[in-house]
Amino acid sequence: MSNILGNFLRLTSYGESHGHSIGGILDNFPANIPIDLDFIQDQLEKRRPGASSIATSRKESDRIQILSGVFEGKSTGASIAFMVENQDARSKDYNEMEKLFRPNHADYGTWAKYGIRDHRGGGRSSARTTISLVVAGAFARLFLKEVTKMEFLAYVKSVGDIRDPGDYENGDYPELEKQAYTNDVRMISEEHAALSRRKIEQSRSAGDSVGGRIQLLVKNVPAGLGNPVFLKYDAYLAFAMMNIPAVRYVSMGNGIQAPEENGSSFNDIFEVMDGKPRTRTNHSGGVQGGITNGMPITMEIGFKPVPTIMKEQPTIDTSLEPGVIKGKGRHDPCVVPRAVPIVANTAAFVTADFYLMNRLARKD
Amino acid sequence: MSNILGNFLRLTSYGESHGHSIGGILDNFPANIPIDLDFIQDQLEKRRPGASSIATSRKESDRIQILSGVFEGKSTGASIAFMVENQDARSKDYNEMEKLFRPNHADYGTWAKYGIRDHRGGGRSSARTTISLVVAGAFARLFLKEVTKMEFLAYVKSVGDIRDPGDYENGDYPELEKQAYTNDVRMISEEHAALSRRKIEQSRSAGDSVGGRIQLLVKNVPAGLGNPVFLKYDAYLAFAMMNIPAVRYVSMGNGIQAPEENGSSFNDIFEVMDGKPRTRTNHSGGVQGGITNGMPITMEIGFKPVPTIMKEQPTIDTSLEPGVIKGKGRHDPCVVPRAVPIVANTAAFVTADFYLMNRLARKD
Amino acid sequence: MSNILGNFLRLTSYGESHGHSIGGILDNFPANIPIDLDFIQDQLEKRRPGASSIATSRKESDRIQILSGVFEGKSTGASIAFMVENQDARSKDYNEMEKLFRPNHADYGTWAKYGIRDHRGGGRSSARTTISLVVAGAFARLFLKEVTKMEFLAYVKSVGDIRDPGDYENGDYPELEKQAYTNDVRMISEEHAALSRRKIEQSRSAGDSVGGRIQLLVKNVPAGLGNPVFLKYDAYLAFAMMNIPAVRYVSMGNGIQAPEENGSSFNDIFEVMDGKPRTRTNHSGGVQGGITNGMPITMEIGFKPVPTIMKEQPTIDTSLEPGVIKGKGRHDPCVVPRAVPIVANTAAFVTADFYLMNRLARKD
Amino acid sequence: MSNILGNFLRLTSYGESHGHSIGGILDNFPANIPIDLDFIQDQLEKRRPGASSIATSRKESDRIQILSGVFEGKSTGASIAFMVENQDARSKDYNEMEKLFRPNHADYGTWAKYGIRDHRGGGRSSARTTISLVVAGAFARLFLKEVTKMEFLAYVKSVGDIRDPGDYENGDYPELEKQAYTNDVRMISEEHAALSRRKIEQSRSAGDSVGGRIQLLVKNVPAGLGNPVFLKYDAYLAFAMMNIPAVRYVSMGNGIQAPEENGSSFNDIFEVMDGKPRTRTNHSGGVQGGITNGMPITMEIGFKPVPTIMKEQPTIDTSLEPGVIKGKGRHDPCVVPRAVPIVANTAAFVTADFYLMNRLARKD
Repeated sequence: MSNILGNFLRLTSYGESHGHSIGGILDNFPANIPIDLDFIQDQLEKRRPGASSIATSRKESDRIQILSGVFEGKSTGASIAFMVENQDARSKDYNEMEKLFRPNHADYGTWAKYGIRDHRGGGRSSARTTISLVVAGAFARLFLKEVTKMEFLAYVKSVGDIRDPGDYENGDYPELEKQAYTNDVRMISEEHAALSRRKIEQSRSAGDSVGGRIQLLVKNVPAGLGNPVFLKYDAYLAFAMMNIPAVRYVSMGNGIQAPEENGSSFNDIFEVMDGKPRTRTNHSGGVQGGITNGMPITMEIGFKPVPTIMKEQPTIDTSLEPGVIKGKGRHDPCVVPRAVPIVANTAAFVTADFYLMNRLARKD
Repeated sequence: MSNILGNFLRLTSYGESHGHSIGGILDNFPANIPIDLDFIQDQLEKRRPGASSIATSRKESDRIQILSGVFEGKSTGASIAFMVENQDARSKDYNEMEKLFRPNHADYGTWAKYGIRDHRGGGRSSARTTISLVVAGAFARLFLKEVTKMEFLAYVKSVGDIRDPGDYENGDYPELEKQAYTNDVRMISEEHAALSRRKIEQSRSAGDSVGGRIQLLVKNVPAGLGNPVFLKYDAYLAFAMMNIPAVRYVSMGNGIQAPEENGSSFNDIFEVMDGKPRTRTNHSGGVQGGITNGMPITMEIGFKPVPTIMKEQPTIDTSLEPGVIKGKGRHDPCVVPRAVPIVANTAAFVTADFYLMNRLARKD
Repeated sequence: MSNILGNFLRLTSYGESHGHSIGGILDNFPANIPIDLDFIQDQLEKRRPGASSIATSRKESDRIQILSGVFEGKSTGASIAFMVENQDARSKDYNEMEKLFRPNHADYGTWAKYGIRDHRGGGRSSARTTISLVVAGAFARLFLKEVTKMEFLAYVKSVGDIRDPGDYENGDYPELEKQAYTNDVRMISEEHAALSRRKIEQSRSAGDSVGGRIQLLVKNVPAGLGNPVFLKYDAYLAFAMMNIPAVRYVSMGNGIQAPEENGSSFNDIFEVMDGKPRTRTNHSGGVQGGITNGMPITMEIGFKPVPTIMKEQPTIDTSLEPGVIKGKGRHDPCVVPRAVPIVANTAAFVTADFYLMNRLARKD
Repeated sequence: MSNILGNFLRLTSYGESHGHSIGGILDNFPANIPIDLDFIQDQLEKRRPGASSIATSRKESDRIQILSGVFEGKSTGASIAFMVENQDARSKDYNEMEKLFRPNHADYGTWAKYGIRDHRGGGRSSARTTISLVVAGAFARLFLKEVTKMEFLAYVKSVGDIRDPGDYENGDYPELEKQAYTNDVRMISEEHAALSRRKIEQSRSAGDSVGGRIQLLVKNVPAGLGNPVFLKYDAYLAFAMMNIPAVRYVSMGNGIQAPEENGSSFNDIFEVMDGKPRTRTNHSGGVQGGITNGMPITMEIGFKPVPTIMKEQPTIDTSLEPGVIKGKGRHDPCVVPRAVPIVANTAAFVTADFYLMNRLARKD
């Protein structure tokens, strides 16, 4: 349903870029989970603008406020409402957008749909709405930490044509995450991070933008999450990721290669190691037939270049008259570094949802 | 929710490969729509096994039965139940699968989740469950035909490394569909269809399988379908497609290229033609910020090679003992030809869902 | 949502009185529950027409068919589809109803809503659709039997002004149920059952009908089912019951008396007995603030007299012309005896739904 | 689902009595509806505590704040978040309730369910959570005012055994509402309002409380709202009302009398007046077979006496030890006067939900 993510664990979100705040309500979050606000705030810091020279200069403190559902540091089982106030909104940067449609944005579609539009900062279509994903996902991680050993890692795999060649699926995720956050690009290979940073700065200097890819890895996911038909784990994860602004494709495991493979080369052969089933390879990315098999979840997510650029571009307006538009707001020249915590936390949210769903699957 | 597709228009599905039947219930289908059963049956024929030498030899007549919701040839607004009986199920082909886990199937995940499994023909995880998608999508098309001019086209874009180089976005979709169905591969370019057919036959001879890609095109979609956050048109379309067995990636428009592009090259510039907004290019695939912009919807869907192959493969069983498995059932060496009507009808279902949803968006 | 009952355990229903069949799909039913088809069939027998001289003479064998989700006698976790075929439909009895609106039926509302109507036997609005409630509720009872000690009892409390004065809340429910089913009226007091039977026969002779009340009792419900806001146990139970045809009011515990009571007289005082909390009285009917407290659930459900009577009644038709209508189909002169198994099984369904929901409420 | 009201128009609520605020998110509210904040605030005033000597002395200004979804005075189609801050929470009044279970409250059930409880002021189970119902319902009325002529009236029908004998179904609802709000009791008959007020004051003096009934009337509801099975208009209205704290029964039309009536006396005969269908009587309360028939909606809602009284009552605590409890917080001795705007606005919310749902029922 609109504005809702999740089936059992469920986030209902609200907020516009230049409105009062961004937030949401989290339903069916289990009771008695310790709520570490510092952890949630830290996740917000990771996506916060203004932290780096290669990101938008909009300054937001992005402080999380919990409005309900937490009592003496623990969840109570009641719906959890949260809110992050908007502070540094410069709506006048967007005055000319009141009527002009920016290319590759939701402006025209929104106007066609509703006949009214809060144009300031992109309104409801702003990437600032991902705050609610980060917060809800951080809550999900607090729950999963209590009851499982799952680990979530996201990092930038490529910026433009610069690609980190590393394979980190079997690495130490907390260490790798630390490593990725040592640079502005959120890439693990320092060498490629430096190249990527240069690419982003060149784009910015040229008044242009550039795309990129994020790799998601999840470890210690129990086998059995997901459903055989219509609510496959990977399908819902794809849905969640495709709702993140600028995402244009999602690929499970080695999905991009899959169409050119044969069964004999692509199949992941089961074996037993240390008394537990595993597969020799993990082309499937941890999900087979929509259900997790206990191997790490691996997903590649492709982002388009930010459409708002500092070059003049022709366009049209609400009267269908031609016009010219040139970016004035504060925008990221490359969206992937700030999308890293969004991807990781969104994956946690989806996984917690499936984890809870499985409590209905068995007799006891 | 599990077994459910759609938010306003809604399909609840049921059925296993070797059970009584495959079917579903369609909710919120508008009243007074003429129900052309021949059209629905024809869509089923298009995915039916046994129609070609490069598909499984399982023989199913796949006759649609409507159990409710249709009166004197028209929908009544009541829930529409439909059923397609299973006939040619050879469960004994699957006896050894009772305990062995096939690679890249849901077998192990299902067992881990439920502790019980209808192993015959893959049970609930069989691709035969896509019958309900085809039927529900065909209903959706009957509705859309009554009230819009939308056209849906799916075709095979590649088989292994053989790729149809044509760009058919602005073509005559009904003609192109006819052309695709003149060959077993469902490819538009006859030359590449012949090459693909040879590739599939080689795979079959080698006891192996091969992957492929399907291109989806939808024309005359009104601008304004979809939502800015969490129920984006493309995100839900991706969800629907990722629920189709063997799909490993989905990409909107030129999504696969997007991460290596710049904003200035990737942006689709708005202009007015014949008094209507359009974009010069359509890299976005008809969806921007999650909302349709009136341009054709274009999506590329990547399928893995069928995991069941006629070669011996090592695996394990429910006691975690090693075993060897070799395909015995009747299986398609390449899944994409039969997936073509599934993709087209699933897209129709999703689009009808968003079309109905938009009736809530405005005052009147 | 329309045609759906339940939030976690979920029934999607279909079927019209004179269509192919009545049935539904049950989602999220836990795996590995033994499915005793005889029990389900027995519940259907209890509501079956043609079993008594005071019920409709329509003859239906009402055989349950399971189409999916059950394998070797146990649930698999897949969606469970079921179907009961319609056999003795005499549509010609309803010919004049094609245009005339019967009083106190959905005829006019349906026509106003959809502009089309399957008038035969009331179409989708027939009480025959309660078959799906009985079956889904019987499944729910099979689940609850496996994992709890809950017991469900429904019986006729009154027919017209004849009221069974007994208080059976603390009785032996299986014995009381047997007792109620020894008479056609489904009343526990034999004396009042005889009086009620006479009243129903008098109504029938006079070509008229009569209303009545059903009492629902549920024992051994754990404390803690239900939610504090919007999904209260009693609110959803009321919703489920109000969906049963002819129900006009629902009252929890001593609800009918509540408005004229004082807090000091109506409050149920907590005490501990045998180491467990209980209340001295149970005016609340086992639910306080929307959440069960471990005491028996008690609800009174009021049914109107069947609107179809064998007397001429003026009415209007689809052209708004006046007409005269007189019952011709086969109808029950009093609906409550056949509603007894519907109420009991519907309560089981709702309770199982809340029982499963509670698996999400806690950390583990 | 928990914390959610509505199917198409949808409210997700949050908040505890002594938490930061009470509020919610409204989804699928149509765009371009003028949002009259004064109207919404006025509805809140009508339920606000501290306005009368017969209500709790808790002082709350209850100012509505809109956080999203409204732009330049109109709805945008985005989710609408709203918030009412808590100000005068005296948590120390509730210290002894930390462990003791109040009779006829959710205290014990909540503790049994979650194992944790925000006891302050009843936490999530406080009647203060009805603020979200009033606000969401007020939004619904703003929408319905724009597109229909519906009128909503609720008033106190009885306090204890004092019953307003008037029949106001065909009266001037806005005038009748004004009349009801001229007295603290919200009763239309001045004479009975005075008697009721005396009754409430006597209860308060005795440290006791008293129950009552509210009558709901809705005029100009179009025929055709509601569904034949499982989402009947009256069933969902009953669900919504039963979620209001202290409600113990709901009765459609003359439902309470229905079980003792005959078909010939209870049926509402259709006729045509001024070219429109109507019924001579309205025993059905405007809903037949779950679908509105264009007659006024009439529902009677029965409330129990407030369980918190100023007398000592025995109870038990979380260690199952006996204790004694005596009300200390500020409580209404009779809940019905303040429930009047809750009932009226909740009915508006449910009706708007069904009104929107009907946009899917027809072809165009």
